[in-house]
Amino acid sequence: MHGFIYDIKTKVYFGSNHLSTLGGELSALGKKVLLCRGGSSVIRSGLYGKIVSEIKSAGLEMFELTDIAPNPRIDSVREGVRICKENGVEVVLAVGGGSVLDCAKFVCAGALCDFDPWKFMSEGAPVKRALPLITVLTLSATGSEMNPTGVISNPKTTEKLGRSAPALRPAVSYLDPENTYTVSKYQTACGSADILSHIFEVYFQREPGMYMIDCFMEGLMKTVIKYAPIALSEPENYEARANLMWASSWAINGFISAPAGGAWSCHPMEHELSAFYDVTHGLGLAILTPRWMKYCLSEETLPRYVQFGVNVFGIDSSLPKSVIAELSIKKVSEFLYDTLGLDDSFTKIGIGRENFKAMAKKACEGGVINGFRPLAQEDIEKIYEMCL
Amino acid sequence: MHGFIYDIKTKVYFGSNHLSTLGGELSALGKKVLLCRGGSSVIRSGLYGKIVSEIKSAGLEMFELTDIAPNPRIDSVREGVRICKENGVEVVLAVGGGSVLDCAKFVCAGALCDFDPWKFMSEGAPVKRALPLITVLTLSATGSEMNPTGVISNPKTTEKLGRSAPALRPAVSYLDPENTYTVSKYQTACGSADILSHIFEVYFQREPGMYMIDCFMEGLMKTVIKYAPIALSEPENYEARANLMWASSWAINGFISAPAGGAWSCHPMEHELSAFYDVTHGLGLAILTPRWMKYCLSEETLPRYVQFGVNVFGIDSSLPKSVIAELSIKKVSEFLYDTLGLDDSFTKIGIGRENFKAMAKKACEGGVINGFRPLAQEDIEKIYEMCL
Repeated sequence: MHGFIYDIKTKVYFGSNHLSTLGGELSALGKKVLLCRGGSSVIRSGLYGKIVSEIKSAGLEMFELTDIAPNPRIDSVREGVRICKENGVEVVLAVGGGSVLDCAKFVCAGALCDFDPWKFMSEGAPVKRALPLITVLTLSATGSEMNPTGVISNPKTTEKLGRSAPALRPAVSYLDPENTYTVSKYQTACGSADILSHIFEVYFQREPGMYMIDCFMEGLMKTVIKYAPIALSEPENYEARANLMWASSWAINGFISAPAGGAWSCHPMEHELSAFYDVTHGLGLAILTPRWMKYCLSEETLPRYVQFGVNVFGIDSSLPKSVIAELSIKKVSEFLYDTLGLDDSFTKIGIGRENFKAMAKKACEGGVINGFRPLAQEDIEKIYEMCL
Repeated sequence: MHGFIYDIKTKVYFGSNHLSTLGGELSALGKKVLLCRGGSSVIRSGLYGKIVSEIKSAGLEMFELTDIAPNPRIDSVREGVRICKENGVEVVLAVGGGSVLDCAKFVCAGALCDFDPWKFMSEGAPVKRALPLITVLTLSATGSEMNPTGVISNPKTTEKLGRSAPALRPAVSYLDPENTYTVSKYQTACGSADILSHIFEVYFQREPGMYMIDCFMEGLMKTVIKYAPIALSEPENYEARANLMWASSWAINGFISAPAGGAWSCHPMEHELSAFYDVTHGLGLAILTPRWMKYCLSEETLPRYVQFGVNVFGIDSSLPKSVIAELSIKKVSEFLYDTLGLDDSFTKIGIGRENFKAMAKKACEGGVINGFRPLAQEDIEKIYEMCL
């Protein structure tokens, strides 16, 4: 168990009927607001209208950055930075899912810097300060609403790079489960796979973390496994959407990872998929995860699979350990492919082995991902092969 | 499930070797520091010397409030307020367990008010602002290190009253499990009973909260049940002390209670015990809790006992529900009295029925505690009777 600093200052309004506080929260941070969003879905759902009305009622000046794409691109960040600088924007409001939020984070940071914002990713330029960010979440997946991280793609260099800094953590986030009622089955499934993966990355490590956090992680995984299918069949089930939403925040706000060690494995492997093929992040993770689990299973790692299988899937603990481990992986596959209905191979989504070597090299940055099982380039290539 | 606002801004340094940041954290908040502590145990343990050294190295001016008693008294608060006002104290540093921290909270609030601080408790005078508070925790129990609540006793009026306000939440807390190595077996046992009770108060409610939080609460309870006995037999077991410490904070920082409803029951009943007899809070809770559980068991409440027994104590779920419920209560009793070794009755600690009527009336404030089972004065008297 590691010592750690816990410092999560995001204020969260959870539930319906909190939006009337938005004007006040924005006003406390500035008078000029940049509203960031994706396409027109937030307009169709009516959310956009409510938010604009709040902004106007509060007497704030509003600017807009629109059409932020899934796997958000550095060009959107640059455009947002330009608007902020030209208009003296003081606070940024992100309305959408993780992509919109991630993009908005680097708009916040870029607005207070005099260099191109891609340098945050490409050169690790320090994020010393950032405009304050308020978010209104519409998709339960990335946890961006409560964490200090963003991932940005650069199609020109086929790079998808993440970056964390305390200044990027949202000041306030509005989590209204009803705002996820219109999320499609496919995106609900991908989001659920993403949440699960964030927990897997911390749970499946060689060094033991903290028992109390293990219990919490197992609870979060059970929550996703229980409610994702309900959200798929009943999109307007408040309880299901609420549990998924709050689980998405806690899976990756730093609480579970703080006392843990070890690098993440599936996320860097997936980021290359998205960078090369613009795959939906959660789908890429869903295809990779069970293969990675199989690849990492060894005498040393076995106990973790057993604990997972028994505590999360209720597998009979009296079975031989190796059987429990195999069953655990099978249960994960069944959940992702049968229950969530996600594609189960690269082949099904049109990806061949043509870029495996380049992707694997980038994923481990030419070295080793020192996670649950250390993964060098050739290990990653093998895992990619298993996904065909 | 209720909508809620989550807003827990306390920064926590968890683990050993963080104390070198104390000077910097204090300096950021002020130059004049009031150090609050209890008796001499922090001097004997060496912690006091380290802290004073940090304060001096940072060039800060230090004042002291000492001898804060368990079940801290309003006189200590008044004395602290006097020191703050006379010397222009800018930041308060509480070193100790929940009693020291609670007292310090109302010193922080009282220092910025022009009325007697007992009015915060007796008249609900608003806590509009407070001096910033940094804590160094030495006992895992009350969760005061991360919550906005304090409980103060007034021996003259035999009152023990709690009060919460956002301004009372500590800015920074240092949680070093090693600082609890010297906590006695008895206090470790009482602290563990207190942590458990904080979870019980939220877990045992009629209205369902949030499944994800249920899982977390069950994990917290399993954590206490697993590690309290280890801390008793191996006081310097880091893993046990660490899990108890982090569990104590999360049992009552607002995370589990936010989506829940219903009043707390055992705490108000216990506060009267402490007010009338100066009983150790955790011990009072330990005697009351199993009786309260028995008293609340009904057809309506049964499912909660079953969920608890199966998920926390691993009771066979195929048993009849009523049997599981009875076994659950038995398990709680065994844990508190046999495993933790706490006294199991009022009689054993010298309390008779002489004040039951007065205590019961005060506990429900002449009305009804609307918790797991609504408790009027006569119900509370019956529960007290069961404790003899």
